[in-house]
Amino acid sequence: VSETTTSLRVRATEYFRDLQDRICAGLEQADGQARFREDTWQREGGGGGRTRVIANGAVFEKGGVNFSEVFGTMSEEFARQVPGEGREFTAAGISLVLHPRNPYVPTVHANFRFLTKGQKQWFGGGADLTPYYPFREDVVQFHRVWRDICQRHAPVVDYHQMKEDCDRYFFLTHRNEPRGVGGIFFDYLEDHLERIFDFVRDCGDAFLAAYLPIVARRRHTEYGQRQRDWQLYRRGRYVEFNLIHDRGTLFGLKTGGRIESILMSLPPLVRWEYDYHPEPGSPEAELLEQYLPPRDWANEPV
Amino acid sequence: VSETTTSLRVRATEYFRDLQDRICAGLEQADGQARFREDTWQREGGGGGRTRVIANGAVFEKGGVNFSEVFGTMSEEFARQVPGEGREFTAAGISLVLHPRNPYVPTVHANFRFLTKGQKQWFGGGADLTPYYPFREDVVQFHRVWRDICQRHAPVVDYHQMKEDCDRYFFLTHRNEPRGVGGIFFDYLEDHLERIFDFVRDCGDAFLAAYLPIVARRRHTEYGQRQRDWQLYRRGRYVEFNLIHDRGTLFGLKTGGRIESILMSLPPLVRWEYDYHPEPGSPEAELLEQYLPPRDWANEPV
Repeated sequence: VSETTTSLRVRATEYFRDLQDRICAGLEQADGQARFREDTWQREGGGGGRTRVIANGAVFEKGGVNFSEVFGTMSEEFARQVPGEGREFTAAGISLVLHPRNPYVPTVHANFRFLTKGQKQWFGGGADLTPYYPFREDVVQFHRVWRDICQRHAPVVDYHQMKEDCDRYFFLTHRNEPRGVGGIFFDYLEDHLERIFDFVRDCGDAFLAAYLPIVARRRHTEYGQRQRDWQLYRRGRYVEFNLIHDRGTLFGLKTGGRIESILMSLPPLVRWEYDYHPEPGSPEAELLEQYLPPRDWANEPV
Repeated sequence: VSETTTSLRVRATEYFRDLQDRICAGLEQADGQARFREDTWQREGGGGGRTRVIANGAVFEKGGVNFSEVFGTMSEEFARQVPGEGREFTAAGISLVLHPRNPYVPTVHANFRFLTKGQKQWFGGGADLTPYYPFREDVVQFHRVWRDICQRHAPVVDYHQMKEDCDRYFFLTHRNEPRGVGGIFFDYLEDHLERIFDFVRDCGDAFLAAYLPIVARRRHTEYGQRQRDWQLYRRGRYVEFNLIHDRGTLFGLKTGGRIESILMSLPPLVRWEYDYHPEPGSPEAELLEQYLPPRDWANEPV
């Protein structure tokens, strides 16, 4: 079957399914100890997915890589909030979150998806990094991967727009605080869909190369209770964002998704402490003051 | 100043402020080790509060008792969702959540408040219990306290209604699962306000007597890693409820409340595990199967 006769939806779905295999294989190899367990599931209203979870690894305390391909009818209320006529939709995509055990290794999230509603079709997705400690090299290198891909696909893709949309999206309005150091975020890309699909494939293919070098650099750094406490505290912000603000979580809950697959993104262990503030001048304070406020990291020196 | 010439709002506010003192004193005495720290705060739009937090106690791993008295103008969108004309409101109340360290001691929540919007005035509140292990005596005794108070105030107050409203409210729709074993819940009580105030005072005054006997019975029960892991896992449900569903949390976020006071209800340490199910026949499974589904506990034998 040639590209032109096979629908974009089918090809995107196949790409995401294969990407899940490749990413999981790469993460298992990097971890060296734990393996993904797989649960396949069917959605009552139509479709299903393959949830893969890794836990108690040498690197990854908990992580999930979810592939899903769902379709059906949105509730009337939810359908009003999503572009495209009618209530019928399809959604295929991959979503992943990795929570490393070592506080010097950042948490990472990525998501790539293809949706249709009525006659509308679009891609959405992105990748963003949530470090616990400030390492300029890690943040600059991560951002440069996405900048370079975007630049290869310009002008169909606008890096600065996607970078700013990421900063805007991963923001805890209730705390007036960014979730992490950002990356790229895009949604409702509906023009030049074949060229956008090329872009999305380049992004998906680059995920391991964007993240694993950071893992390799930090995984053996020694840490103590102080660093662990800070990591667990900061993970609380991740939970707050995902449960209060995240559209992906909301989409899953509103469209009858599998709850354990939707919430697999939550960290394994989390700490809340009332009115906690790190010591001025500490690396923890540096993260908040110098790394969370949005910056054009890709164009800064390492 | 006689009761009739002092507004209900002023008297309710004074009652809640004094109740915070009495409850904190009783909890400190029960804990025997930790003391509450107090933060007073001002709200930009009007009013303020006294947040009191206890941590690392002999009994209480983390707990908060918040008094607040706020007033101002609601956003247009939020005002549409609250009864009463216009956007001007006042709200005074006390809200508390206690997370004990010992998994055999249940988490407890209570909240009593008086609100006005336009010409409307009403009381709301309630108290509910979230055990980690099944103890019939604790659950029955807790429910009986509230049943007995409601019956003393009948027919202005309807126990069965308040008990069912509690079961309905503290429910995680995304998991189709109750948060705990319930208690009572009421809102928008606007008729016979002086008699409702009597009822609310009886509830507030009874809080320590409803909870501390349970603490006394369970606080010295030995536990191990299994019980601790289960407690941390179940605390995840508490977080999910408070961040996804709780109207009190939402009210605070929507009316520009102090974020650390609103989220002081979150547990100190929480665990999420993918697709976890307790062993069939275990006490953990018994809690889920026999204690979470709503029952008329107050009228069951101990």
